[in-house]
Amino acid sequence: MEIFVAKSSGFCFGVKRAINMADRCASETSGGIYTLGPLIHNPQVVKRLEDASGVYAKNTVDEIVKGTVIIRSHGAKLEELKAAKDKGLNIVDATCPFVKKAQELVTELTREGYFVVVVGEKDHPEVKGLKSFGSTEIKVAESPEELLDMPRMKKIGIVAQTTVPIEKLESVVRYCLLKATEMKVFNTICNATSIRQKESAELARHVDLMLVVGGKNSANTRRLAEICSTIQPCTRHIEVAGEISPEWLDGVQKVGVTSGASTPDWVIAEAVDKLKAICCTPCVK
Amino acid sequence: MEIFVAKSSGFCFGVKRAINMADRCASETSGGIYTLGPLIHNPQVVKRLEDASGVYAKNTVDEIVKGTVIIRSHGAKLEELKAAKDKGLNIVDATCPFVKKAQELVTELTREGYFVVVVGEKDHPEVKGLKSFGSTEIKVAESPEELLDMPRMKKIGIVAQTTVPIEKLESVVRYCLLKATEMKVFNTICNATSIRQKESAELARHVDLMLVVGGKNSANTRRLAEICSTIQPCTRHIEVAGEISPEWLDGVQKVGVTSGASTPDWVIAEAVDKLKAICCTPCVK
Repeated sequence: MEIFVAKSSGFCFGVKRAINMADRCASETSGGIYTLGPLIHNPQVVKRLEDASGVYAKNTVDEIVKGTVIIRSHGAKLEELKAAKDKGLNIVDATCPFVKKAQELVTELTREGYFVVVVGEKDHPEVKGLKSFGSTEIKVAESPEELLDMPRMKKIGIVAQTTVPIEKLESVVRYCLLKATEMKVFNTICNATSIRQKESAELARHVDLMLVVGGKNSANTRRLAEICSTIQPCTRHIEVAGEISPEWLDGVQKVGVTSGASTPDWVIAEAVDKLKAICCTPCVK
Repeated sequence: MEIFVAKSSGFCFGVKRAINMADRCASETSGGIYTLGPLIHNPQVVKRLEDASGVYAKNTVDEIVKGTVIIRSHGAKLEELKAAKDKGLNIVDATCPFVKKAQELVTELTREGYFVVVVGEKDHPEVKGLKSFGSTEIKVAESPEELLDMPRMKKIGIVAQTTVPIEKLESVVRYCLLKATEMKVFNTICNATSIRQKESAELARHVDLMLVVGGKNSANTRRLAEICSTIQPCTRHIEVAGEISPEWLDGVQKVGVTSGASTPDWVIAEAVDKLKAICCTPCVK
């Protein structure tokens, strides 16, 4: 059996940066260290941060009395940042620079009088954050259907969740073209996401089994599994190596492995080791 | 036989305004009166202006020694306007206000540092005019294929020829979304064009013969004929009533009549009269 690991698998730039900032903070700072929401959407990493570094995830600023609060790569809501500041907490801002740019653009667009549409998932923390940066009402939509009640506007400004598929941005832009005389669009989609998606889709085309490794609570990992399964129906989304069942490999010649942006290398390595252990033939990477 | 005339047929707002301005100019001004290019793309109207009002079409400012120059609804190139001014000609600017707005937007976008793409036909006088209003290099394209050599840009600004089909603007916008981080789009397409196209298409669906009346040199009339013929293969593009051949009406129960934005009412009325004369049944309008 051959195992192929997607080159782009593992942490993306923003996640790697946030983990490094949390690790540095844990080694340099005394007192309580907290993250606002889990640092990344990967339970294994969050557990490691708690156990090894004493960094605990809290859901709201209210739950933190004093100490340091780390803003995760998805960013936070403007009101949460203000609350943390007002409370005198030490803020370590690990917001991904690409997300930060999108937040600034939302502020700029509302200031310039644009009615802002954020293309993304309503309940995703990045989108909730983005929305809060506008000084006027903001619409969130993943498709034109969600904008049917939007009246005709003079100026529409559009930004995207950094991990949204380009097709969603395209369809909203197309719709808004008919809804406004002027439209300002910032393609804030992070390239890493589309490269990972394309590469994983390509890999899925050439294997008998596709393993997508990553948090079940990670939107980008779930999306990756969705893409791969449309190409290779035999696609499995796992969080840890222990989930791999030997019978999945019956008759399988080639296995593809990919992962979401918040999956650490060691979790991927463990999955590959488990595959190797089941089938003792040499591995080609 | 029943004859149905599209409600939206006849001059559009900009053409009507230009004709009125030319007529007023002819009645109030002494000395030579010229238009820069034919006032509208309709040979019958241009001939009437020459014969009845003494307004002559010239192709360039060089051909006009003195007197008044009327800028047609399509607008003119910035350098032509400058040349006319430098020559001391009396300028009557009948540029359609919607075209003028698009010209101003091209100037504004290039000033703001956008690489400007004009969605339209390279050889159309309106587009040649629009292009001249930019202070930097400008691309003209009707489809993404014409932009393949365009490098990745930081900021792309897009305006459209006022009579271009929305689908062309959509496809260029979609392409540019992948070519730039920031995109500013002005939907400068005139509503009258799309209303006329939609109404004519609807009419073509319910008749046995579709007559599209208008200048063979009129891009919007040709486009209308193209749209109607995809729905009703029995579509004829005529310029004047005299072209209607009685055998076209053999076995025809319902005729639809539509026209381009530069077709005067009297040319349409003549076509309807000719249809009535061939078939003596009462006409329903």
